Amino acid sequence: MIILVTNDDGVNAKGISELVDCIPAGHDVWVVAPDEPQSGKSSAITVDAALRYTEHPEFTGAKAYSVNGTPVDCVKLAMHTILPKRPDLVLSGINHGSNAGCSIIYSGTMGAALEACIQNVPAVGFSLLHWAPDADFRMCKPWVKKVIVDVIEKGLPDDCCLNINFPAKVEIEGLKVVKAARSHWTEEYKEYKDPQGHPFYMMTGKLINEEPDNDETDLYWLDRNWGTVVPATSDQNLTPAIPDVKDMLGC
Amino acid sequence: MIILVTNDDGVNAKGISELVDCIPAGHDVWVVAPDEPQSGKSSAITVDAALRYTEHPEFTGAKAYSVNGTPVDCVKLAMHTILPKRPDLVLSGINHGSNAGCSIIYSGTMGAALEACIQNVPAVGFSLLHWAPDADFRMCKPWVKKVIVDVIEKGLPDDCCLNINFPAKVEIEGLKVVKAARSHWTEEYKEYKDPQGHPFYMMTGKLINEEPDNDETDLYWLDRNWGTVVPATSDQNLTPAIPDVKDMLGC
Repeated sequence: MIILVTNDDGVNAKGISELVDCIPAGHDVWVVAPDEPQSGKSSAITVDAALRYTEHPEFTGAKAYSVNGTPVDCVKLAMHTILPKRPDLVLSGINHGSNAGCSIIYSGTMGAALEACIQNVPAVGFSLLHWAPDADFRMCKPWVKKVIVDVIEKGLPDDCCLNINFPAKVEIEGLKVVKAARSHWTEEYKEYKDPQGHPFYMMTGKLINEEPDNDETDLYWLDRNWGTVVPATSDQNLTPAIPDVKDMLGC
Repeated sequence: MIILVTNDDGVNAKGISELVDCIPAGHDVWVVAPDEPQSGKSSAITVDAALRYTEHPEFTGAKAYSVNGTPVDCVKLAMHTILPKRPDLVLSGINHGSNAGCSIIYSGTMGAALEACIQNVPAVGFSLLHWAPDADFRMCKPWVKKVIVDVIEKGLPDDCCLNINFPAKVEIEGLKVVKAARSHWTEEYKEYKDPQGHPFYMMTGKLINEEPDNDETDLYWLDRNWGTVVPATSDQNLTPAIPDVKDMLGC
């Protein structure tokens, strides 16, 4: 198999090396990842600037390149130009930080996986609930390996990519296949004053779980030391709403 | 009603003034839009830089501010800081260019609308299939006005925002409420050589419609001079795939 590995923390992040280390031997592994951190980049693309790629011969375990763009740029440029042919699998991560609940929509890690999904390539995004650059991935790696082996052997359903999150610093109980909890961020900015007295704002915030007692959601099980597997789609159609919207617009 | 208007082409784009001009009198209209073009920014957020906002007293028809960030940053900062209270409606656009088919996932216009949706505020994104800065919005404005009036009067279904596209330079036949056509971009980069002979890449590409004969899709009707209304959701769960993924992982 040709396996493309990317992330949003950049080619030098610890998490992407740990992810490559989880891929079983015998595959043709290519890393194409951002040259700089790209957290929160969602499915953003670079529409009006020059993209370049740079080889990283020092990277262990894969042919590695960085791109001066977003995670989706990496997947697109890899498939268009860098890889010798279409990948059979795209892996993204291991992200330093959670992509559970509503965070998938802002996630560059999952932006890359969803891009693969649009291109009909099976894809899995992995995230550890710990932001530190030197986060400890040892507890989650056996589970990452298991998922990769299963996906290589058995594939994924059509139009489905996986958003997998792991709790940090605990023994992981196992994997739960669930949906992302309905949630939103609140208190999202801290206000500062610059030396001239003008206000500026830095992102912070709290994730509000709108269904904390629902045991069919990722946030519920992450709190209880389970890894969570959310089947996700790039399809944003809300088809069941079509009749109501037709009524509303009288057409 | 408090109405928040944003876009991804920036506060100075023609399309956002045209959109404000379509809002019926008697509402409290606030423009909070990017200070620079932000096309292709999807649901990206600024996680590690200072955001500021600037008043634009020259803007006609609304209190107007620009933010040095993405469309989603604009919605979040507007709701957190700039607006006196929570908006009753978010309008985004009118975008200079298509957001039909799979383009919704890359769209900053729709990123803003989806953010409102996450925050449980009704939202509509509008796009005209013409990239020019001086694009002619006259043909679509009666339809934009009609949608705004209907949404103000009747609201939207839960968890639903609208992605509305209009053909350019034609008499518009009417509105069709449909789903986004399954599609993907191909041939996405043009290769150049810089003066030192090193390659770089600029985005281009063709949108491939994977279901060109499906008359329940936006691309079908846009080709036939209709405006299209796609009910969209920020929910990326693919819940029907949960049993298959459980089987695949044996858990």
